[in-house]
Amino acid sequence: MSAEATPLSSTPRTTLRRHRERGQADRAALYEVLDAGLICHLGVASADGTPVVLPTAYGRDGDTLYLHGSSANGALRAADGQRVCVTVTHLDGLVAARSVFSHSVNYRSAVIFGTATIVKDEAERWDGLRLITDHLIPGRWAAARQPTTKEMAATAVMSLPLAEASVKIRTGMPADEPEDLDLDVWAGVLPVSVTFGTPVPDPKLRPEIPVPAHIRDRVS
Amino acid sequence: MSAEATPLSSTPRTTLRRHRERGQADRAALYEVLDAGLICHLGVASADGTPVVLPTAYGRDGDTLYLHGSSANGALRAADGQRVCVTVTHLDGLVAARSVFSHSVNYRSAVIFGTATIVKDEAERWDGLRLITDHLIPGRWAAARQPTTKEMAATAVMSLPLAEASVKIRTGMPADEPEDLDLDVWAGVLPVSVTFGTPVPDPKLRPEIPVPAHIRDRVS
Repeated sequence: MSAEATPLSSTPRTTLRRHRERGQADRAALYEVLDAGLICHLGVASADGTPVVLPTAYGRDGDTLYLHGSSANGALRAADGQRVCVTVTHLDGLVAARSVFSHSVNYRSAVIFGTATIVKDEAERWDGLRLITDHLIPGRWAAARQPTTKEMAATAVMSLPLAEASVKIRTGMPADEPEDLDLDVWAGVLPVSVTFGTPVPDPKLRPEIPVPAHIRDRVS
Repeated sequence: MSAEATPLSSTPRTTLRRHRERGQADRAALYEVLDAGLICHLGVASADGTPVVLPTAYGRDGDTLYLHGSSANGALRAADGQRVCVTVTHLDGLVAARSVFSHSVNYRSAVIFGTATIVKDEAERWDGLRLITDHLIPGRWAAARQPTTKEMAATAVMSLPLAEASVKIRTGMPADEPEDLDLDVWAGVLPVSVTFGTPVPDPKLRPEIPVPAHIRDRVS
């Protein structure tokens, strides 16, 4: 069995009970959803047990997810050694059915559960930050000024194993009841996508510096 | 003080400790972030305390947020009477700085904490579903077939007061250190937006039914 075909876990938590037809059981689907995303939503339990859900950047190295934040970030520090949830969602379309009840959305989502660890090893911290930076803009790490020792000290890097996850995907048209098909109601899909606009240079940029290839590639 | 100017709560949880300049303290900013969003991420503590973060649709009526799901949805049922977190995030741009450390993203986010309630009152359940449907596609509720008693019974509606929330917004250019401004590195913003494509009619749609105004308005 190739690495790509390794099945995802099927713990009770990640075994889909409803809409099982939307479940994806292979790692390739997980990687695809993660690699195509820009930001994730991290869920951490606060001291009183209330979940805190925060948007944040991420990067992936094989079966490890990396997140980062300020060393002074309380939510990140509190997550060290705790069970967390990271969710990446792509909204691909609004599904307008003939009945209100059959309305839906087309989406791809990955929900990952695991124990978060604040990374201590300096080489892994460096790699984690590189992966996060290059996840948002591939090639950016090598193009920008590298972190100083002081900047590294001000940054916390968190790792999360991609061991327990579920991937759900819905595509296609509304699933109206047969008796609704003749209704005088428009039905179909409104496609939704995330798009990049033309890069806007910093007004303080030295005018002779052109838009580099890695920026052009990101927005094309 | 007008309703629009009512300040958001400033409990310890929602008082920003870092990047306070990104905080917004008025309800108008909260409404704006929520009303411009399509989906939210709901954080619920599972039985063992692990947060579960799920993408879902929502609607708003004044200072009440509505979510919905299948009556058989365990996560939703488990949230009844529990403290939950709902986060809406708009990613507006990738901020490419001269230093890796100063990289950032432009975004608008609302993080709401509150006690979730499964709505029992049938009129409020009906209104909640209408608000959720019309949030995604304004005008859709009136255009589609209304729910039957059986469909209503199969649907759970959850309400959450917009009492404790924080709104964060970052806009603009990278905040590089002055000593980095002369580096030979392109810097600027890559704008990101959510866009709608041309509506795709259901192949089963009766061909004489045109794209209605509320669908055209949504995607324009």
